[in-house]
Amino acid sequence: MRRFISHKTINLISKTTTSTISSSSSPNSPSLSPNSPLNSLLRFFSALPAYSLDSMASDYSATPITIDNINPKVLKCEYAVRGEIVSIAQTLQQSLKDNPGSHPFDEILYCNIGNPQALAQQPITFFREVLALCDHPSILDKSETQGLFSADAIERAFQILEQIPGRATGAYSHSQGIKGLRDTIASGMGARDGFPADPNDLFLTDGASPAVHMMMQLLIRSENDGILCPIPQYPLYSASIALHGGTLVPYYLDEQTGWGLEISELEHQLKTAKSKGIDVRALVVINPGNPTGQVLGEANQREIVEFCKKEGLVLLADEVYQENVYVPDKKFHSFKKVSRSMGYGETDITLVSFQSVSKGFYGECGKRGGYMEITGFSPEVREQIYKLASVNLCSNISGQILASLIMSPPKVGDESYESFSAEKEAILSSLARRAKTLEDALNSLEGVTCNRAEGAMYLFPCINLPDKAIKAAEAAKTAPDAFYAKHLLNATGIVVVPGSGFRQVPGTWHFRCTILPQEEKIPAIVSRLTEFHKKFMDEFRG
Amino acid sequence: MRRFISHKTINLISKTTTSTISSSSSPNSPSLSPNSPLNSLLRFFSALPAYSLDSMASDYSATPITIDNINPKVLKCEYAVRGEIVSIAQTLQQSLKDNPGSHPFDEILYCNIGNPQALAQQPITFFREVLALCDHPSILDKSETQGLFSADAIERAFQILEQIPGRATGAYSHSQGIKGLRDTIASGMGARDGFPADPNDLFLTDGASPAVHMMMQLLIRSENDGILCPIPQYPLYSASIALHGGTLVPYYLDEQTGWGLEISELEHQLKTAKSKGIDVRALVVINPGNPTGQVLGEANQREIVEFCKKEGLVLLADEVYQENVYVPDKKFHSFKKVSRSMGYGETDITLVSFQSVSKGFYGECGKRGGYMEITGFSPEVREQIYKLASVNLCSNISGQILASLIMSPPKVGDESYESFSAEKEAILSSLARRAKTLEDALNSLEGVTCNRAEGAMYLFPCINLPDKAIKAAEAAKTAPDAFYAKHLLNATGIVVVPGSGFRQVPGTWHFRCTILPQEEKIPAIVSRLTEFHKKFMDEFRG
Repeated sequence: MRRFISHKTINLISKTTTSTISSSSSPNSPSLSPNSPLNSLLRFFSALPAYSLDSMASDYSATPITIDNINPKVLKCEYAVRGEIVSIAQTLQQSLKDNPGSHPFDEILYCNIGNPQALAQQPITFFREVLALCDHPSILDKSETQGLFSADAIERAFQILEQIPGRATGAYSHSQGIKGLRDTIASGMGARDGFPADPNDLFLTDGASPAVHMMMQLLIRSENDGILCPIPQYPLYSASIALHGGTLVPYYLDEQTGWGLEISELEHQLKTAKSKGIDVRALVVINPGNPTGQVLGEANQREIVEFCKKEGLVLLADEVYQENVYVPDKKFHSFKKVSRSMGYGETDITLVSFQSVSKGFYGECGKRGGYMEITGFSPEVREQIYKLASVNLCSNISGQILASLIMSPPKVGDESYESFSAEKEAILSSLARRAKTLEDALNSLEGVTCNRAEGAMYLFPCINLPDKAIKAAEAAKTAPDAFYAKHLLNATGIVVVPGSGFRQVPGTWHFRCTILPQEEKIPAIVSRLTEFHKKFMDEFRG
Repeated sequence: MRRFISHKTINLISKTTTSTISSSSSPNSPSLSPNSPLNSLLRFFSALPAYSLDSMASDYSATPITIDNINPKVLKCEYAVRGEIVSIAQTLQQSLKDNPGSHPFDEILYCNIGNPQALAQQPITFFREVLALCDHPSILDKSETQGLFSADAIERAFQILEQIPGRATGAYSHSQGIKGLRDTIASGMGARDGFPADPNDLFLTDGASPAVHMMMQLLIRSENDGILCPIPQYPLYSASIALHGGTLVPYYLDEQTGWGLEISELEHQLKTAKSKGIDVRALVVINPGNPTGQVLGEANQREIVEFCKKEGLVLLADEVYQENVYVPDKKFHSFKKVSRSMGYGETDITLVSFQSVSKGFYGECGKRGGYMEITGFSPEVREQIYKLASVNLCSNISGQILASLIMSPPKVGDESYESFSAEKEAILSSLARRAKTLEDALNSLEGVTCNRAEGAMYLFPCINLPDKAIKAAEAAKTAPDAFYAKHLLNATGIVVVPGSGFRQVPGTWHFRCTILPQEEKIPAIVSRLTEFHKKFMDEFRG
């Protein structure tokens, strides 16, 4: 089981202190003022580095819930992207703040997560103008607004408000999302694919994650139900399958062929799973790949569709990086387009596509917008999916609006078109340069090979670790790639996620590194990484 | 199994049409233009009333997922608040739009759901000013902004941006929510309760629903795990328990004593459940009550805390209506305050409180903001809760900001204070008047008794239905209260939720009706309801 060190220990501290406060309170005792000595003490403790304070743990033996009696599926679930390394990084960050100069670096560089705006990427102006106007529509008619907002943002806000029943941006919407916004999204998808999309097939969600959970919840009945997932995979899939009690059936991407997806591997793993009594229900494909960054070719996609059709599998297509393609020889094609272009219609193949406002060039992670398009489900099953959506009422309206904006950005002739295009181009071309620079730097390191980031936001280099490092990791009871990542973090402040968090071919070691740090910081990252790696190899070469 | 009629049939239509389009497409066929004849046909069909078109169902026999092979827990889950009655209402609304005058009413009045802004309640100006400024911070420094926004909203937006690392409102936050916003919320809770709250105990969520799911996911291991829930209950609880595979252990609120919560009933039901081998893990209390509207007295709350302490139960306190109290003789007390005032500290009792920005006087349902405060969990268990939160990364930042605003509204001396207070007072006093008017109207109907709405947003009258109506409902294969609600809808356009959706004492019949329609519409609702009820009783009195 992983430990969230800083979180845990901060809780320990505050729990102990709070407990002291509470148990000394008589019934109806007055509140502690924010500046009371005890609260000052609490703040002081909270600011301390955490790891030395385990001995202060309170005694929870009288409370009913223990680690041994919670849902074991929760224990089984893992999510490395926000795991131990990040907790250590947060502790280091606090330590840097409290004691500048206490470490051999002056800032933490979070390369663990695809979170562009956390690394100073600015939001797309047009999107934020529209969101602000929809949040506070009463300024739409005021003259000052003309000076603050672009004309097409004002017009778009009016259009969107007209699509919302009662112009009520604070009301629960239809559980699939506001119909007018779904119309806009469907229209954008139709233009993208050359095949129509149906707004009734769309379910707007708070980011793509809840949509993935919803499908796992629908499909998984027991541990005998399997979901084919790429290895390496984005850990949302393994986490969600674990939480819903199913079995992850792995298929390995071929690192030698640029993380190729081979049908023979799918067939082999499906057969193996079946021989173990697993009822394989769906195939997850992440395109562009996460953490692997490859973009599937159309011919390969056709093979995948054919495989799902033949084997009766639901195709769960994670297409959240569809706008992040950096190489001229690759292009994103949705699985819907590929299926339809093969002549497969609604009742021929069951396909779910996930999309998010968190990725793309806009990277609006904090807005939690996203959607899934479901096709090939019978009306009875669709009712059940609708019911699942309805239990949580609806996704957040700002996220819904943003989902409509990413699928219908400013067009030629709109006032914002040029500035929008410039913002978009600047981000995408910079990401492509950063990807290339980091890829080249990684490939220049001893024992490291790195496929190119054709798309998405990540590099996933393979590190050929010396035996001595592997033995040292074993002695420290950690995975060798986690051992490397911790050393990297402590030496440089660079946060990456160990490959073991995504799974990998046994005996190989990787890490995932985003391409997102600001471009001007990339040279420093390259030199810090290079210097660290040389020292690490010198120390452990044996 | 319930049917979502309009949704289902609209899907059927569009599916059939899409399927026709697709199967006639050859590989690489060109896209259909938005104005193609087939697309026009699709739009035409989509606008038709849906119920007559079941015969157009497509054949999904070649697709892998059927109603018989999905997760049975999904089938078992029910959520009446957005169930069949609402689907009929949506069909009627479309019918009214297409053929004005086709029904004996000219609008649908949605009294089924606590969704104030859908019924024309305006958002609180200060909250929306701050949200808009945080969405588009680049206008903060511009001179026009001074003319459009209040000074304290501008100042608050600056403060909030300072609390967000990198001022990045578009970045994923800490999985519990932005620390500075949690500090603000904790401070507001401390001021409310007279006992401190710890920001590390707060998990900000997309509305309260995901928080409820998270706790059910943590606590429920199998159908042998039980959760004590009030009957009648808000169906999120029954739905969530069903989805996570647990057992709802009912305890009945006493309608005769204004929906009183009797400890003897808790003891009786706990004993009964234990005798069946159920491991009861938690007690859900909804205060103020939903659908019942009662506000618990402090002495009663102390008994409940003592019961949970004695029996080793987690107390899951749904406190989302804490700001909706309408009667001078009742006051909201949080269970945290009550527990602490009894001298029970962090390690004495395990307590979770749910709060939401959807309720209160502000009613910001569409923003999907909310949080839970967890206390009395050991550090190891807290890590697991954190992990569950981290799998979905974080809740939406606008909702997080709003959650901080509701717990720290404008104060005396702030520019917005007077207008804010006036908006708040106008909403709350109007709700109190509406509650009283509707309560009196219901109590004047033959065979209807209705407890007062002390808080929350609902009335839950008991209808003593004539035998002939019950028999007619049986013949129509529907619950008698659903039979009544459908007749009410078809005759008046008023949408209520049948009591059977919330569960009730067997053999009694109720419905839930919100107090939210605009005040000027209340007299018409009362007269329509009164006239309908008289006719219904005349028809079925037998």
